[in-house]
Amino acid sequence: MAESEKVEYRPISVREALTEMKDVSEIMIDLAYSSALFNSTELAEEVMELEKRVDYLDYIIEMNVMLAARDAEDAEHLTAVTTVAAATNKISDAAADIAAIVLKKIGIHPIVRKAFQQVEERLARAIVKPNSFFINKTLGELELAAKIGVDVIAIRRHREWKIDPSDEEKILENDVLIARGAPHGIDELNDLASGKLKVME
Amino acid sequence: MAESEKVEYRPISVREALTEMKDVSEIMIDLAYSSALFNSTELAEEVMELEKRVDYLDYIIEMNVMLAARDAEDAEHLTAVTTVAAATNKISDAAADIAAIVLKKIGIHPIVRKAFQQVEERLARAIVKPNSFFINKTLGELELAAKIGVDVIAIRRHREWKIDPSDEEKILENDVLIARGAPHGIDELNDLASGKLKVME
Repeated sequence: MAESEKVEYRPISVREALTEMKDVSEIMIDLAYSSALFNSTELAEEVMELEKRVDYLDYIIEMNVMLAARDAEDAEHLTAVTTVAAATNKISDAAADIAAIVLKKIGIHPIVRKAFQQVEERLARAIVKPNSFFINKTLGELELAAKIGVDVIAIRRHREWKIDPSDEEKILENDVLIARGAPHGIDELNDLASGKLKVME
Repeated sequence: MAESEKVEYRPISVREALTEMKDVSEIMIDLAYSSALFNSTELAEEVMELEKRVDYLDYIIEMNVMLAARDAEDAEHLTAVTTVAAATNKISDAAADIAAIVLKKIGIHPIVRKAFQQVEERLARAIVKPNSFFINKTLGELELAAKIGVDVIAIRRHREWKIDPSDEEKILENDVLIARGAPHGIDELNDLASGKLKVME
């Protein structure tokens, strides 16, 4: 995997980067809490993946904002942008801190689990295998929310993230789906992604 | 107000404190984003109030965890509790960083507003005046969600916070309601809290 560590990202505007940072940091908190609640190293690993993305976006914003400031007044207004970027980065770090406990296998103290128990809907990760029913189908076609009560909130394709993917998004082999739903639906999603289940019930 | 700065808090367990920290930090992020989106110093001030509460809860947890550790293994497990507490504190700090931009009146850059625009439902603060229709009524009686589409997510009574208040919670004079809802419902909530509107339509 070492040679693919450095990924070329497509160009992105400051507005897009900030919006993505906000959305990603929110998903990261949910993922981190779920990873602690269910002691899930899978979810904790996704938190760590997302943290890299947030760091990259923060860097993009810092760089672009520096280039954009034309005068002192401009620079003052732009501090709002860098402050918000730094704040979402802080949120992302906090999520990573929680995920790190899971990855270190310290053991989640019952107090932590109790505090996170209100998380009613489960977040889960499902990897799309080559023989999955999902391959080459769009999210719109699949209607997972209506059919199995599961909402795909993000798709990771190698190192590229699609946050809040559109109905037109096509699922490909090896995609990693991050989804939210009731436990029964999540089980079905996993079985469909792994190819264990061939059609939606 | 100086003499009332030091408030006696009721005793609270580590589990309760951690649950509250988690819930409060989540509300703070929403409040901070809304304060930036609507350039609302009112909401920004509530974020700052909540940050004090989170700091206090973090202190309670740190102290109790130290007293609870009986041996090395125990201490290791308890680090999960302090790490999670520190992480929620970090999230709360991030929210306060965003609120501080609003309070400093730097001006919210359009890029920030665009990034936060997806916040569909509005968060708002409403102060209950002495002649309000709400006085001495419980949230259960009022059925605000059903009647005006507004969800009271927190009540502040001087320095005491009630997060996710129950149906039995009675609204008193000077209570500060933090609510989430569509703009029309929020306007109605404000009019009812201020006494401008005498009955629910």
